[in-house]
Amino acid sequence: MPVTKGPTTAEKRVRQGEGHALQAPRGTRDFYPEDMRRRNWLFDLFRKTALRFGFEEVDAPMVEHAELFTRKAGEEIVDQLYHFELHGRHLALRPEMTPSIARMVIARQGAMRFPIRWFTITQNWRYERMTRGRRREHYQWNMDVWGEKGVEAEAELLSAMMTVFDALGLARGQVRIRLNSRALLEESLREGVLASRPGVFEPLCVVIDKIDKIGPEAVTDLLRDEKGEIGLSAGEAERVLEMLGVRSLDEAARFAAPDSKALAELRRLYDLLDAYGIADEIPFDASVVRGLAYYTGVVFEAFDAGGTLRAIAGGGRYDRLAETLGGRPVPAVGFGFGDAVIGELLEDEGLWPRLERKVEDVVYAFGPDEMVAAIRVARRLREAGRRVELAPGGAKLKRVLGEADRSGAARVHLIGGDELARGVVKVKDLSTKQEHEEPLPAS
Amino acid sequence: MPVTKGPTTAEKRVRQGEGHALQAPRGTRDFYPEDMRRRNWLFDLFRKTALRFGFEEVDAPMVEHAELFTRKAGEEIVDQLYHFELHGRHLALRPEMTPSIARMVIARQGAMRFPIRWFTITQNWRYERMTRGRRREHYQWNMDVWGEKGVEAEAELLSAMMTVFDALGLARGQVRIRLNSRALLEESLREGVLASRPGVFEPLCVVIDKIDKIGPEAVTDLLRDEKGEIGLSAGEAERVLEMLGVRSLDEAARFAAPDSKALAELRRLYDLLDAYGIADEIPFDASVVRGLAYYTGVVFEAFDAGGTLRAIAGGGRYDRLAETLGGRPVPAVGFGFGDAVIGELLEDEGLWPRLERKVEDVVYAFGPDEMVAAIRVARRLREAGRRVELAPGGAKLKRVLGEADRSGAARVHLIGGDELARGVVKVKDLSTKQEHEEPLPAS
Repeated sequence: MPVTKGPTTAEKRVRQGEGHALQAPRGTRDFYPEDMRRRNWLFDLFRKTALRFGFEEVDAPMVEHAELFTRKAGEEIVDQLYHFELHGRHLALRPEMTPSIARMVIARQGAMRFPIRWFTITQNWRYERMTRGRRREHYQWNMDVWGEKGVEAEAELLSAMMTVFDALGLARGQVRIRLNSRALLEESLREGVLASRPGVFEPLCVVIDKIDKIGPEAVTDLLRDEKGEIGLSAGEAERVLEMLGVRSLDEAARFAAPDSKALAELRRLYDLLDAYGIADEIPFDASVVRGLAYYTGVVFEAFDAGGTLRAIAGGGRYDRLAETLGGRPVPAVGFGFGDAVIGELLEDEGLWPRLERKVEDVVYAFGPDEMVAAIRVARRLREAGRRVELAPGGAKLKRVLGEADRSGAARVHLIGGDELARGVVKVKDLSTKQEHEEPLPAS
Repeated sequence: MPVTKGPTTAEKRVRQGEGHALQAPRGTRDFYPEDMRRRNWLFDLFRKTALRFGFEEVDAPMVEHAELFTRKAGEEIVDQLYHFELHGRHLALRPEMTPSIARMVIARQGAMRFPIRWFTITQNWRYERMTRGRRREHYQWNMDVWGEKGVEAEAELLSAMMTVFDALGLARGQVRIRLNSRALLEESLREGVLASRPGVFEPLCVVIDKIDKIGPEAVTDLLRDEKGEIGLSAGEAERVLEMLGVRSLDEAARFAAPDSKALAELRRLYDLLDAYGIADEIPFDASVVRGLAYYTGVVFEAFDAGGTLRAIAGGGRYDRLAETLGGRPVPAVGFGFGDAVIGELLEDEGLWPRLERKVEDVVYAFGPDEMVAAIRVARRLREAGRRVELAPGGAKLKRVLGEADRSGAARVHLIGGDELARGVVKVKDLSTKQEHEEPLPAS
């Protein structure tokens, strides 16, 4: 086959933006072998870590009824839904995994033993403007605990996340997980704003989440906007902004009620994180509230310490989601960890490992007459569990040897007319360059 | 958490067909832990087999431009497309993997070394009437060879397929792969029908493929239908039907030209299959043509010998697909092997293995005060690579022990107030029922 000629007509058409059936849709990725090796390596690490924490893998269809995702208004995620009508149904590609997990839990809520610990590694879709590390699809690792109301669940999840950062070769300090509690914020607003308007809390969190993007002044405007659904007074908005600036539990205590349950939970959580040896990596940060409306308690986001990339992972407690979807109440907490941003960070830090093709043996027949013998050799090696490439007879030996070397093969097995006549195969060790002969298999 | 109560309100609504956001869309599957263990076990076998044959894994987005799949008319697959308009683009969920693979090959055709050997394990979607073993989504293992024109490629693929049947525990004879060559059929029609109407061959194959479903008479009618695009004479249609009845190469020779290239290739293929030790499992069957228009040469379909299920796997040579899509010509051959029909067969034959959860250690704190110590124990075990479930302090010990036993755990590590005071953890071996104590980790 011809190699490295100029671009074909099809390639030119694609580069010129024509013939778009020949391109993956904008914002999506093809995974060529070298990309796939990285993806599998990363997913294997996710899977191994989740299993080490006693979690079980599950999956749900990528297409769901759109209604599952549009249960609440005001979330960015709903505007970005890949949704469509088909045969009278309003369907959507899942933008995140949690609603599908919730649906699966609710469907068997009466028959399952809680707590359940589930993980998923799935592709999710969001139709949005593309920036670095953000496409219209990404893969996401999720871990969720259902039926455990204590912060023991949060601590397990955060430890699992940190286990992956460690395993990826990121030095402690290269990634920080900023953590807060929506319950703490809710408590401090309970006597005031929320007393008359309890429904205001979720949209308020969605607005606060934008603070890094749009700045404190724009957030204040949105909190005060009388035409909006929140409508805080100047004093209330100021107090909320002041609270968002808090960066330690002791400081947070100044805003919290003397017997604050949320604060006690946070102190307990940090004791547990200390036992996991990860408390130093997880600073308290009252400005973190996360953009999804359904979070109710502890929330957290992992960032690269350099601060140049978007969030690597995020999650929190969502104790009311089951009820919102029509199930019985059950406490729950989880996180999502995408493949895109961590991939950028590994690239920046030079931490992707060298992942080779891992063929172990190449069997080469000089011509069609030796093919039957070559097949018998390949078959015997494969039956012994080896990874064997059977090279086509027509290829040039020199190229086959070069390819074998590049693919990391340990041995090449050569069969020409002379070997066939003598009933042997020549075995060349590619590291020592030594050759020896072995008898051909009888059948 | 409450266990095995009656159905919840949400469950009742789902059973009554209401609240459909709480159901997976019709024809799709949720994978609960026990389903996922089977899926992973099957996919691991696909993956291991493909790697053993020197193939490399790739992937493409599940959403493609619809145009990629609608390049040809007359195929059932186009009518069954999950397609939709979104933001001015006509998109579709892939019904099969081959066009995406072709797109990826064409996009780098000038830069890649052929032959390439790729495999995929992907979810594909078809909107169709549901029957046993057939849903609107299924997962499919594909193996494709690009750039190898000889039947050596077909033989490798068929051997990989048979390797999986063997590994699944299916006795030789329980699955048969019926094989034919479209090239043989095309050759024998070349002087006659196709001389004046070469475009007729592809629709003719699509019609012939229906013979098992609609019977020979209905096929004859479709071949002769003067208003249709094929329009054979009575004699021509009769000859085609007669050819379809052929079940051996010697018999096929009666219809073929004396120097038939297609027949020589088939004989060569059977010599190679014999070297793989699988020729007896792959009967020649001239009625097999496959329903996809793009096949050009050898085609094959795997069936359970009982004949009660749909095709387990199928594939063939498609040497003109790259050109059809605007690329340079490159020979190619591949197969697709779904997860659904093989799953039914394994179920019928009782061949699914018992797949347990595989937690190795359960760490149990009697109360919140022992949680920090329990975390340290769990952490040490996990660092040693063990799969550890950290049981919540509030759970009943008896239930934890029962669960640990069911999940196949080898050991339970118990920490109560007494153990904590003495700085030890009680380790109970679940198989020997013996207990001993170990010192608690210092930090």
